[in-house]
Amino acid sequence: MKKTGTYQFASKPSIVSTAVSVGPLEKVSPFHPHFDFIYEDERIGQETNEKGHSQLIEDTCNMAVTKGGFQLQDIDLLLAGDLVNEMTPTNFAARQLATPFMGMFSACATSVSSLITASFFLETKLMDKVMFGAASQHNAVERQFRYPIEYGAQKPPTGQWTVTGGGYGILSHHQTGKPYVHSATIGQVMDCECTDPLDMGSAMAPAAFDTIQKHLAQNKGTSYDFVMTGDLGKNGFSILQELIKSSGVSSYLVDNYRDAGAEFYGNEEKFLSGASGAGCSATVYYGPIYAELLAGKWKKILLVATGALLSPLSFQQGETIPCIAHAVELSME
Amino acid sequence: MKKTGTYQFASKPSIVSTAVSVGPLEKVSPFHPHFDFIYEDERIGQETNEKGHSQLIEDTCNMAVTKGGFQLQDIDLLLAGDLVNEMTPTNFAARQLATPFMGMFSACATSVSSLITASFFLETKLMDKVMFGAASQHNAVERQFRYPIEYGAQKPPTGQWTVTGGGYGILSHHQTGKPYVHSATIGQVMDCECTDPLDMGSAMAPAAFDTIQKHLAQNKGTSYDFVMTGDLGKNGFSILQELIKSSGVSSYLVDNYRDAGAEFYGNEEKFLSGASGAGCSATVYYGPIYAELLAGKWKKILLVATGALLSPLSFQQGETIPCIAHAVELSME
Repeated sequence: MKKTGTYQFASKPSIVSTAVSVGPLEKVSPFHPHFDFIYEDERIGQETNEKGHSQLIEDTCNMAVTKGGFQLQDIDLLLAGDLVNEMTPTNFAARQLATPFMGMFSACATSVSSLITASFFLETKLMDKVMFGAASQHNAVERQFRYPIEYGAQKPPTGQWTVTGGGYGILSHHQTGKPYVHSATIGQVMDCECTDPLDMGSAMAPAAFDTIQKHLAQNKGTSYDFVMTGDLGKNGFSILQELIKSSGVSSYLVDNYRDAGAEFYGNEEKFLSGASGAGCSATVYYGPIYAELLAGKWKKILLVATGALLSPLSFQQGETIPCIAHAVELSME
Repeated sequence: MKKTGTYQFASKPSIVSTAVSVGPLEKVSPFHPHFDFIYEDERIGQETNEKGHSQLIEDTCNMAVTKGGFQLQDIDLLLAGDLVNEMTPTNFAARQLATPFMGMFSACATSVSSLITASFFLETKLMDKVMFGAASQHNAVERQFRYPIEYGAQKPPTGQWTVTGGGYGILSHHQTGKPYVHSATIGQVMDCECTDPLDMGSAMAPAAFDTIQKHLAQNKGTSYDFVMTGDLGKNGFSILQELIKSSGVSSYLVDNYRDAGAEFYGNEEKFLSGASGAGCSATVYYGPIYAELLAGKWKKILLVATGALLSPLSFQQGETIPCIAHAVELSME
């Protein structure tokens, strides 16, 4: 039988601390009251966007450690990644943090692939505290994947705006009163033969749908407060809703579907189809959503981070855009 | 107390199957009798180097599955990565393989970070078969990190030659008669402030030394047949040997030290300081070394894959080269 990639964690590892920080533009977000820190400067006082990106990662990881009442030396492992080539912002932040470190790359889905991996590591009882998360920085990512940012190039309405922000958490053994990882579904690469790098939402929606279907099929009868995808944006999210509607399976399982990217910037036209970037799902999941779980507002949610696994080179070579989605089910007792 | 990143796997997960394949130039390697497949064409019949790279990954993973007597649908998860931006060769191969997939990035140390992660996943008993490994393709990597390959630019004697090759294995529950993962040390990022991207060996040697020291300190009294680093090359390996000599700790613990990169191309001058690339350690570890363990030639070895976590951009921005090394101890009963 084909593997569905769905696993349940008997030890119920808990997210015991999180921290999220964002850039200045992200102040417009309806989520902003739950961001721990908002920088006034996109570059975080550094001389390049990439160095600013790295500083944001380092600061936010330190914040997650401090907020949990821990010290860096308590952290067994950092599992993290970003979208810049060779993930140098995360690598350089890991140098400063000086914890054992393994880089993860699932593009924007790294926010969740890192948490799923942390859950397996905790389940062995060999580790006690694993830090996980992801980040993105608007200018560093935009200029790498699209145009020199100074051009001010216009994008179509399907385009998305890369978030400057990072979200990190610390996963530890089960603690009552903290949200815990109930189960997860590791996605497989899906390719609907989309080719437009300015319409990632359309490319990613089928991967999100596939992973959600698999997760729900393995958790029949479970009631969710909501399923929240990562950064499909308004356009991709509407495609996901169509896919769900036509499948006819979901309405009795969840009350509603949401998308972090579609909600992130509200209805500001400047941001077109909404937010994207590894920092989009990471800041929303580990900021406002985590806070609301902690406060008892939600009991059970499914977070489905989506990632487009292209490079500028693969696009130029005429390749389509392969995508992936990883899902994690968080519960609060 | 500072975490050493060293873990022992009580379930003794076994490497039940491996496959390695290389490009045409790698025929000169003294290791070549243990390569499963040698392509006659560097591009593996594809129109671009990156597509050839992807094809090599797909073919080699399929070979590891077939050699083990398995089918792709038996694989719970693929954990793999490469050195190309956004790891598109691995992403595209994962699309074809259609197994659940998570990308790993520790540069050339991904050959081992993927095996360590697989060991934790197996230790939970939630999975049964995890495929792990890494690959590199000479032209795809060289033109990305250094010069357009058509220039024929000269390199200094400290330069290394990126291997075209990939090595993949399948980790499963303990099986008598198969090499198993006894323990592992997850490295932390080290930076000795090296800045020369044509001398990666010097940059990586301190990371290898740090990880080896930590692993041996946690496994006092253990006798090893040898410790083999990943791709320090001749230059970096001589620096590691100096570090070991001056520390005075190692001689009673191991009979000798080796480096896959220094040995890979023998003494052919064209290859300068030796081999590099994620495919260097992956093909040597999961080809000849695995075969020799299986044949009972070795009983206990420590494999220490090294990775340079730079990008061309971080180098241009005046950054130093942060490095990492992950170690895995393989045993044969």
